[in-house]
Amino acid sequence: MNNHFIVVEGLEGAGKSTAISQVKQVLHDAGIHDVITTREPGGTPLAEQLRTLVKQGHPEEPLTDKAELLMLYAARVQLVENVIKPALAKGQWVIGDRHDMSSQAYQGGGRGMDTALMESLKATVLGDFAPALTLYMDIDPEMGLARARGRGELDRIEQMQIDFFERTRARYLALAHQDPSVVIIDASQPLEVVTASIKTALSTWLKQLKTL
Amino acid sequence: MNNHFIVVEGLEGAGKSTAISQVKQVLHDAGIHDVITTREPGGTPLAEQLRTLVKQGHPEEPLTDKAELLMLYAARVQLVENVIKPALAKGQWVIGDRHDMSSQAYQGGGRGMDTALMESLKATVLGDFAPALTLYMDIDPEMGLARARGRGELDRIEQMQIDFFERTRARYLALAHQDPSVVIIDASQPLEVVTASIKTALSTWLKQLKTL
Repeated sequence: MNNHFIVVEGLEGAGKSTAISQVKQVLHDAGIHDVITTREPGGTPLAEQLRTLVKQGHPEEPLTDKAELLMLYAARVQLVENVIKPALAKGQWVIGDRHDMSSQAYQGGGRGMDTALMESLKATVLGDFAPALTLYMDIDPEMGLARARGRGELDRIEQMQIDFFERTRARYLALAHQDPSVVIIDASQPLEVVTASIKTALSTWLKQLKTL
Repeated sequence: MNNHFIVVEGLEGAGKSTAISQVKQVLHDAGIHDVITTREPGGTPLAEQLRTLVKQGHPEEPLTDKAELLMLYAARVQLVENVIKPALAKGQWVIGDRHDMSSQAYQGGGRGMDTALMESLKATVLGDFAPALTLYMDIDPEMGLARARGRGELDRIEQMQIDFFERTRARYLALAHQDPSVVIIDASQPLEVVTASIKTALSTWLKQLKTL
């Protein structure tokens, strides 16, 4: 199976949506038109229902960190098995708005969840399935949240304290530095600089892909 | 914390509801009145929403075995942390309509899920938390399903083939034989015999508890 799965990752307000548009444009310019986009958590009917439960929680009941993590992985299984793998098998390209790195960063880093459980879940749910390329949009949490706040109401996770996002960013960076398939994009730069960085990174990667 | 958590387990149509009434009656007769009952999956607002998703699935999307298992454990975390442990800490008795043994039997035995994942989930989610006593209502699947069918529509799980329930029952029995906290009740007997068995088992256990 061709692994044409590209993921865009980053904190709230890092500019993931703009980055995804840019990735689509670069693929289009390279003659790649059969592209679908997915988002996590969500992307299938059942996974979207899980997304709503995780994002909204319940007014009378705290959502435990463990249940949150298990629901995120349940949504991921549904998306990977029912959407992403079938699309890749058909020769389509898939652009993911978040994937497993989000759980590693938010639940592993931000919430400090047990590493053994994280690894066991990842191994069982995903096996050796992983994106071919991840663009991590790096931004200072204060700046990202200020942008996100400008868009309207904040959900349960976006209402966390700033140190939660600092820990999440630190884990994102640590993972990006140790994983050669992750490219760090400085998302604090002006928009034209960010889009140029994405274009350069993706074009370079596509050229390399052809020579393999 | 007093572990006054009693669970009733068994296949569809094994008579769990009747057994739970009987357990309540025996506790009442023993002067134990502060008793709550829970059911799994479910028992909290969020866990009930997960129950609905698991039971109904989605008309356009298969629910994968892995997602099902993760959602069941997410519901279990919510129930254990938000309801069962707080109740036990207050000195209440808790009667559970199903608990972890159901996952072990249905997902582990019936669906043949990976043992390493099952063990990892159980260890992480429950730690050393376990019922003090489990009454396993043993019944032949054909007989149980015939009873369950008499009650009306069957849900997604009750529509499985008979060999699924045979594997589930075999796992239930294997677990019951190796776990001293599980008592097997022959649920194929006439109602008066079954209720007498439950009464004897529970009364004996309560007497022992007082001498500890």
